[in-house]
Amino acid sequence: MPTKSKIIYTLTDEAPALATASLLPIIRTFASSADIEVDLSDISLAARILAAFPERLTEEQRVEDGLAFLGDLAKDPDANIIKLPNISASVPQLRAAITELQEQGYDVPEYIENAQTDEEKEAKSRYAGILGSAVNPVLRQGNSDRRAPAAVKAFARKHPHSMGKWSKSSRSHADYMRGGDFFSSEQSVTMPEATDVRIEFVPNGGQPVLKKELSLEKGEVLDSMFMSAKALDAFFEDTLQDCKEAGVMWSLHVKATMMKVSHPIVFGHAVRVFYREVFDKYGELFEQLGVNPNNGMSSVYEKIKSLPQSTQDEIEEAIHACYEHRPEMAMVDSVKGITNLHIPSDVIVDASMPAMIRNSGQMWGRDGKQKDTKAVMPESTYARIYQEMINFCKTNGAFDPTTMGSVPNVGLMAMKAEEYGSHDKTFEIQADGTMRVVKADGTVLMQHEVEKGDIWRACQTKDAAIRDWVKLAVNRSRQSDTPAIFWLDQERAHDLELTKKVKEYLKEHDTEGLDITIMSYNEAIRVSMERLIRGLDTISVTGNVLRDYLTDLFPIMELGTSAKMLSIVPMLAGGGMYETGAGGSAPKHVQQVMQENHLRWDSLGEFLALGVSLEELGIKKGNVRAKVLATALDKATERLLENGKSPSRKAGELDNRGSHFYLALYWAQEVAAQAEDADLAAEFKPLADALTQNEQTIVDELNAVQGKPAELDGYYHANLDTVFKVMCPSTTFNKILDDFKK
Amino acid sequence: MPTKSKIIYTLTDEAPALATASLLPIIRTFASSADIEVDLSDISLAARILAAFPERLTEEQRVEDGLAFLGDLAKDPDANIIKLPNISASVPQLRAAITELQEQGYDVPEYIENAQTDEEKEAKSRYAGILGSAVNPVLRQGNSDRRAPAAVKAFARKHPHSMGKWSKSSRSHADYMRGGDFFSSEQSVTMPEATDVRIEFVPNGGQPVLKKELSLEKGEVLDSMFMSAKALDAFFEDTLQDCKEAGVMWSLHVKATMMKVSHPIVFGHAVRVFYREVFDKYGELFEQLGVNPNNGMSSVYEKIKSLPQSTQDEIEEAIHACYEHRPEMAMVDSVKGITNLHIPSDVIVDASMPAMIRNSGQMWGRDGKQKDTKAVMPESTYARIYQEMINFCKTNGAFDPTTMGSVPNVGLMAMKAEEYGSHDKTFEIQADGTMRVVKADGTVLMQHEVEKGDIWRACQTKDAAIRDWVKLAVNRSRQSDTPAIFWLDQERAHDLELTKKVKEYLKEHDTEGLDITIMSYNEAIRVSMERLIRGLDTISVTGNVLRDYLTDLFPIMELGTSAKMLSIVPMLAGGGMYETGAGGSAPKHVQQVMQENHLRWDSLGEFLALGVSLEELGIKKGNVRAKVLATALDKATERLLENGKSPSRKAGELDNRGSHFYLALYWAQEVAAQAEDADLAAEFKPLADALTQNEQTIVDELNAVQGKPAELDGYYHANLDTVFKVMCPSTTFNKILDDFKK
Repeated sequence: MPTKSKIIYTLTDEAPALATASLLPIIRTFASSADIEVDLSDISLAARILAAFPERLTEEQRVEDGLAFLGDLAKDPDANIIKLPNISASVPQLRAAITELQEQGYDVPEYIENAQTDEEKEAKSRYAGILGSAVNPVLRQGNSDRRAPAAVKAFARKHPHSMGKWSKSSRSHADYMRGGDFFSSEQSVTMPEATDVRIEFVPNGGQPVLKKELSLEKGEVLDSMFMSAKALDAFFEDTLQDCKEAGVMWSLHVKATMMKVSHPIVFGHAVRVFYREVFDKYGELFEQLGVNPNNGMSSVYEKIKSLPQSTQDEIEEAIHACYEHRPEMAMVDSVKGITNLHIPSDVIVDASMPAMIRNSGQMWGRDGKQKDTKAVMPESTYARIYQEMINFCKTNGAFDPTTMGSVPNVGLMAMKAEEYGSHDKTFEIQADGTMRVVKADGTVLMQHEVEKGDIWRACQTKDAAIRDWVKLAVNRSRQSDTPAIFWLDQERAHDLELTKKVKEYLKEHDTEGLDITIMSYNEAIRVSMERLIRGLDTISVTGNVLRDYLTDLFPIMELGTSAKMLSIVPMLAGGGMYETGAGGSAPKHVQQVMQENHLRWDSLGEFLALGVSLEELGIKKGNVRAKVLATALDKATERLLENGKSPSRKAGELDNRGSHFYLALYWAQEVAAQAEDADLAAEFKPLADALTQNEQTIVDELNAVQGKPAELDGYYHANLDTVFKVMCPSTTFNKILDDFKK
Repeated sequence: MPTKSKIIYTLTDEAPALATASLLPIIRTFASSADIEVDLSDISLAARILAAFPERLTEEQRVEDGLAFLGDLAKDPDANIIKLPNISASVPQLRAAITELQEQGYDVPEYIENAQTDEEKEAKSRYAGILGSAVNPVLRQGNSDRRAPAAVKAFARKHPHSMGKWSKSSRSHADYMRGGDFFSSEQSVTMPEATDVRIEFVPNGGQPVLKKELSLEKGEVLDSMFMSAKALDAFFEDTLQDCKEAGVMWSLHVKATMMKVSHPIVFGHAVRVFYREVFDKYGELFEQLGVNPNNGMSSVYEKIKSLPQSTQDEIEEAIHACYEHRPEMAMVDSVKGITNLHIPSDVIVDASMPAMIRNSGQMWGRDGKQKDTKAVMPESTYARIYQEMINFCKTNGAFDPTTMGSVPNVGLMAMKAEEYGSHDKTFEIQADGTMRVVKADGTVLMQHEVEKGDIWRACQTKDAAIRDWVKLAVNRSRQSDTPAIFWLDQERAHDLELTKKVKEYLKEHDTEGLDITIMSYNEAIRVSMERLIRGLDTISVTGNVLRDYLTDLFPIMELGTSAKMLSIVPMLAGGGMYETGAGGSAPKHVQQVMQENHLRWDSLGEFLALGVSLEELGIKKGNVRAKVLATALDKATERLLENGKSPSRKAGELDNRGSHFYLALYWAQEVAAQAEDADLAAEFKPLADALTQNEQTIVDELNAVQGKPAELDGYYHANLDTVFKVMCPSTTFNKILDDFKK
């Protein structure tokens, strides 16, 4: 018998928490056969509030601090955590939870925005650790491993999503700078020893100004680069002229949300160039009004509201005059007249480009019709991959989800790697001069001559993160028996530094029989796509930005969405976290339960995450039964999808509970049918038989409770016993599960 | 001192022969310093006639059979032949030469087409060996080595030809079949032993019909494949519909001249599909008239001339009606109304595609304007490379001749390799059935189910040719210190067979330090282009068709023409042939000499060929001086180009002779200036000085003879002494050369 193992299943909020109550008994039943315990760890908003104020609660009221527990566990090599979506609490949500807890008799304090007393301040400070995205930063202690699970892939092949046809004559393309961008100015150094450096700006003829101090680790890679504001403006103007001449629509694709310092500035440049005459004429007025072009044209429309109507009309006329001589611009919402330049967060490159490519390479024009488009992405580093894919689709037609292979990703994410950790080291230059990175001893490591308006930034990548990423790539390649390509551009300073490390760290692993190569981005995507249309899989091993881009790009082609991807964070310490689903915790679904006792949360993400969680346990602990359970679960999930046993939207039909029953049925049947572990098959035979024979009875029992309100004894802090009772209403099903555990 | 070496310089016809008289004394003078003899071998049309009838000539009139001599020499490892363009005699040319020889007192017989007597028949038979392309087949005893010489490349970089700008929004593309073509049906076998096979057709339910018998050598590769007529027609219809919808011009690119059996049939299909209604309505009438759509619409226009005017008008109206619902077709001559489908030899893919790509990806429409075009090339095997280049130009813009690298070629050409030797094994299928290749013992090696109208063909590739090709690739890579890529598509049956051989034969060579790889066509061209725009060279090592295509494609981008390429045939036996120039022997230039004693033949090809001829001698014989002369000659050629010392078109200005003087001047100066062989430099110093000091005198003397008629004592068989006198009129120059030889 293998060592006793444990899976930590997070108890979160709202719909996922309700679904957990239905699914957990099944998981526990099945896992017990492989000697695996499944423990709940409560990181719901309510639990986090209670954990923050133990001194105000009675002994019985006190709860374990689940997040602290998981934070510690993340550093344990044995960690195996299934992480469900939780509430990233806004202030109103926090206040509602507090009120509910108080009503239940918990003496938690009010959240007072304008805290005065020490007590209020202390409470506010503790609540600050609970508000917003408080969970992920604690748990995501590693690099990223994302892939389309076999079951999902098989389903997509049989039931493909729609894909827009590509014309060989399409005029659509990606356009990017050929100089003056971050790519062309990038410098990169690796620290031979731990080093303190300072980033400073030396204005021409002036004294150095300290911008930032950094303590770098041994082996850490530090990059610096800048984008020329002049080159950027010239590029935008060129793209606009080119579109006007060619009669092609213009659109801008940046990532102002994630690249929250640099990209809004880039966006602002586009706004000022497109509406050049408006800003030339009203620039001073706009400044007085506080217009910020980095916030898009919405900022203009909002700020000019304070002006007399006649001035407003004049400005709006000037804006419309721009449209006369500019090319047509892609619309975000043609009905409402929302253009591509309205708000910087409307068009996010990693989502918008796959959508455009899936849509025949077209975006929507002012008339609501889709048209060929120039997709403008100033920074050339990553934009080139989209042009590659566009060329590929022109040549080979749209991808075919029914036959195409897959491109999983192993991404360098840990320890705020690369550009995604650069926000506190990004500066818009205020005067002509020199930006430089200087060691404590005065040695200049890197420097750039910059001009007013240029965007300068530095990025860090820690050695430990890189080393782990290489390990993860080798493991994934081995475990999937799939070729892996490190996307490293040999014309990029940063990637040259990484290439050295990758080559070095690859030696630490047994790569015998594996196909692991290093290719430039263009070559890598091309090879991956050539394989893709031949039904072959290729692991992309990429930096942080490409991780983000590719885990939308390929899934959207393959599956129609990136939400069905398996998202694993193998912790640096050796443990693993398996994230489920994408996005929120579906409060609307809870309402439906309260009104008509029907839950339509789709647990697909949990099924998938559990599959890898079990698989990993099997591999790490030599637990053959865990591996068998994992394989059987994937097959069960596939059958569930295939047979349409996901929750219906309508009360009285199959809901979450029924869907879970079918998962149990198929899962038991698959375990009973497999030949790898005959004992286990024999053990599961009676369970499979019992579930098969009682299918109709159980489904009827599960559906019978629907149609009338359900009482959960709380919303944020429901009574767990009550919830379990509501979510497990079939006595037949409950008994079969109980009997199996003996 | 190295062994005495010999260069054989061919004496041919017309302008090249006159130029030889001017250049040869210079070459002999320079070569003597490296102990190299330069012998003339007369393979002019007149000499070949005289050699054919020795028994009718006096002792003094008899000439050596130059072609027989060269044919033997081609099998000698020491062969070093510089081959100038010669007359591929048509019957009128042959008759004119016979008459001239008879007038000069040579008793050569008449050429009688309708020979009756035995004597006449014998004469006709001997003349048959002289007519047409009689020289190249005898001499081309090897694979092909083509590259842009350094001097030409340097000149093109400084004085770039025009290149049409590419729009990123261009709609132009290459389109090709995705099934049903030769590529998708290709089968290939390698003979383990010498084997006799027969190609036979078995009609459904019938007896086998022998189509061809072949004796295959040990290790020979035999391929078979077919193109489906139905799939071809459907493809053409699709491309036409697609163009119509997309508003893009349609054009067809095949190679009906070289692929003289298969491609006219393909062309005929296009004609019948484009003008479907015409052929539907008048098909029977056309058949009676002997219209052959394989000869293009010109055949229709020609044959219907015999019909009454009213019927002609009716048919022409029907033709015009087709244009109404078909997309616009690319024109060969928009002024004369000559379309792409008029004559099969007008648009030849290897020339037309580079022209289109150089011309912004556009061809000419009916209105004489250039427009984006769908280039239709049914067979996908090779068409894909053009789509790759088009995508590349859309992404990166037009190639820049001032900075781009070069793609030399090593081509598998020997022993009628591959498709280019398939004409006698190509069949248009007459009924549904099976085409098969059967061994003498009855074993079926390959077979295809075919339908009436399908085009089936077999191709041979001899082991010795492949082995030599691999050797040539390694040598070229070594000598040029340039990476070499074998273009072998791993999804192509033939290329898989070749890949095995290439891998095997590469082991026979020292490839230490060389960068030799095998890539699919798409990958190979992509890598080559990525290197190209970074100024890097990559040798393409290809089969026979790609040899032909690429030695136009890249030179036209790099140099604006393929005529300036160095064309070397390293003989299988070990010797070398160096071909000069492209195309004919310029009879118009001879007229100009006869009228005003001005020769404007451009000897650039000879300079280049001589350079490699010397270089090869230097390498093979360890003749350092030959290598020094070769290097100096290349530099001299570069200076000659740079200083504009090529022949002018106008009498009284620098002509061929003056150009040759400048070559001698620069060449002598370069040898005198080099440091590799100090003795040789010292020897050349006086020559260089004398030429430098007498530049004006010599140029004056050379130009002074111009403006009045020159007497050559014959056209096909001019008096050689007279020719030398006419072509070497500067006593100063002659004396300096004589003095140097001591």
